[in-house]
Amino acid sequence: MKLLRYGAKGSEKPGLLDEDGTVRDLSGHVTDLAGDGVSIEALERIRAIDPATLPAVAEPGRIGACLASVPNFFCIGLNYAKHAAETGAEPPKEPILFNKTTSCLCGPDDDVIVPHGSEKTDWEVELGVVIGRPAFHVSEEEALDHVAGYCVVNDVSERAWQIERGGQWTKGKSAPTFGPVGPWLVTADEVPDPQALALSLKLNGETVQDSDTSDMIFTVRQIVSYMSRFMELRPGDVIATGTPSGVGMGMRPQRFLRPGDTMELTVQGLGTQRQRAVAAD
Amino acid sequence: MKLLRYGAKGSEKPGLLDEDGTVRDLSGHVTDLAGDGVSIEALERIRAIDPATLPAVAEPGRIGACLASVPNFFCIGLNYAKHAAETGAEPPKEPILFNKTTSCLCGPDDDVIVPHGSEKTDWEVELGVVIGRPAFHVSEEEALDHVAGYCVVNDVSERAWQIERGGQWTKGKSAPTFGPVGPWLVTADEVPDPQALALSLKLNGETVQDSDTSDMIFTVRQIVSYMSRFMELRPGDVIATGTPSGVGMGMRPQRFLRPGDTMELTVQGLGTQRQRAVAAD
Repeated sequence: MKLLRYGAKGSEKPGLLDEDGTVRDLSGHVTDLAGDGVSIEALERIRAIDPATLPAVAEPGRIGACLASVPNFFCIGLNYAKHAAETGAEPPKEPILFNKTTSCLCGPDDDVIVPHGSEKTDWEVELGVVIGRPAFHVSEEEALDHVAGYCVVNDVSERAWQIERGGQWTKGKSAPTFGPVGPWLVTADEVPDPQALALSLKLNGETVQDSDTSDMIFTVRQIVSYMSRFMELRPGDVIATGTPSGVGMGMRPQRFLRPGDTMELTVQGLGTQRQRAVAAD
Repeated sequence: MKLLRYGAKGSEKPGLLDEDGTVRDLSGHVTDLAGDGVSIEALERIRAIDPATLPAVAEPGRIGACLASVPNFFCIGLNYAKHAAETGAEPPKEPILFNKTTSCLCGPDDDVIVPHGSEKTDWEVELGVVIGRPAFHVSEEEALDHVAGYCVVNDVSERAWQIERGGQWTKGKSAPTFGPVGPWLVTADEVPDPQALALSLKLNGETVQDSDTSDMIFTVRQIVSYMSRFMELRPGDVIATGTPSGVGMGMRPQRFLRPGDTMELTVQGLGTQRQRAVAAD
């Protein structure tokens, strides 16, 4: 299934994309795609509904983030060897974990606001993993049983704030609109192998990131299992699993987002995001 | 006002502690103390209720975390000069920001579980700040207008996981029960100066942390204003503002939590937490 949220920012409704590409209104059945609303059990209840019985939405309009009220917006750092190299870092021995502030979540095609005072706003196409069942001390073998589905994430990053402002990375990962998520939450049954997905990002029409999740240093199974040794993951948590090479920080000369730039991000089977960079008001 | 959540884990009810120390049931008026439910406007609506009209709860039983569904559980690192020194770090030039995973939140008197494989579980008494109004690009002068209230936080920390496992600190800050919060959300009007609060922690009855928020390197005003330059803070977000010296990592020899240890944490005017360290199942 492909699930989505559509409508104006802050008043999105849950929907389902049917096989013909029509958005169907799920709001008669579920409150929202958030927390336990995307548990594996909740998704099974949605799956039992005949899409033809759901109202077709003639004009869904804006697509929102495919998840609301994310309990935690996690990211894995430097999870592709070539990307680690382009940042000047050694490939990590263990997954590097950090957080984006949940208020940065936005729709897949919303404008990305280059914040006041930013000179180094950068792009990062990533495979997002959505947790569907509490995960604490789960093995790599069991790990995917705790995954509800997958989505495209742009882990927008302000490099100076991330790296040059002291300590941890959160500061550079969290400005409003720094978290486009979606267009769809694609349930795990449609993604038999999360390590076999092409992913790419075009900047102003030119492909700058072009890789495959088979190049990840730590697989989705390993990441979920590893994280679950330190904390309990919960339904609705999102994990952005790292970006391949081709970010602006890695270019020579470096190249960062300027108002008017466009980004187009695709992960195989999970849809496409299209954003325009705009100046802050 | 002193607000709290009482009852069994996962089914807490919102309540109000009246001037006689009686818990009053708020569940007829508010759904929960979470997100917009602790906005400054929502708190004003609670304030308008005559406590005498609320049902008295004869036996409130367990006290839960004073907040539910925290959008972000932020912490400031090394925010007391002596504590920075005891960890061997230089005092930071800018606030160090990191996240605890929200699933670690628990009640103020719940057992703290020393996780499997942990050898360095440590305590940290802190002043917690609860956001009550969206904050983005707010000045230091305005910052406290965005604060709903304050609470005691124990920022329980596994030092090996925090420091020796690669990259960011989240891994060592997030195990289940690593986030005792409460007993009360004390509204800001009862805390005229957040930089004038004694705070202390007793380990097995012996005072090991004993300081005052006047010793913070960055004040609450500065922290809220600073963070709001990088991200939008939202109602229900918690910021633990750093711990003073006296943690186990700073002792010579180092001393970490073992099952059976007890902790008693107090922040002036915000109540007391009492936890017992227990072994993981």
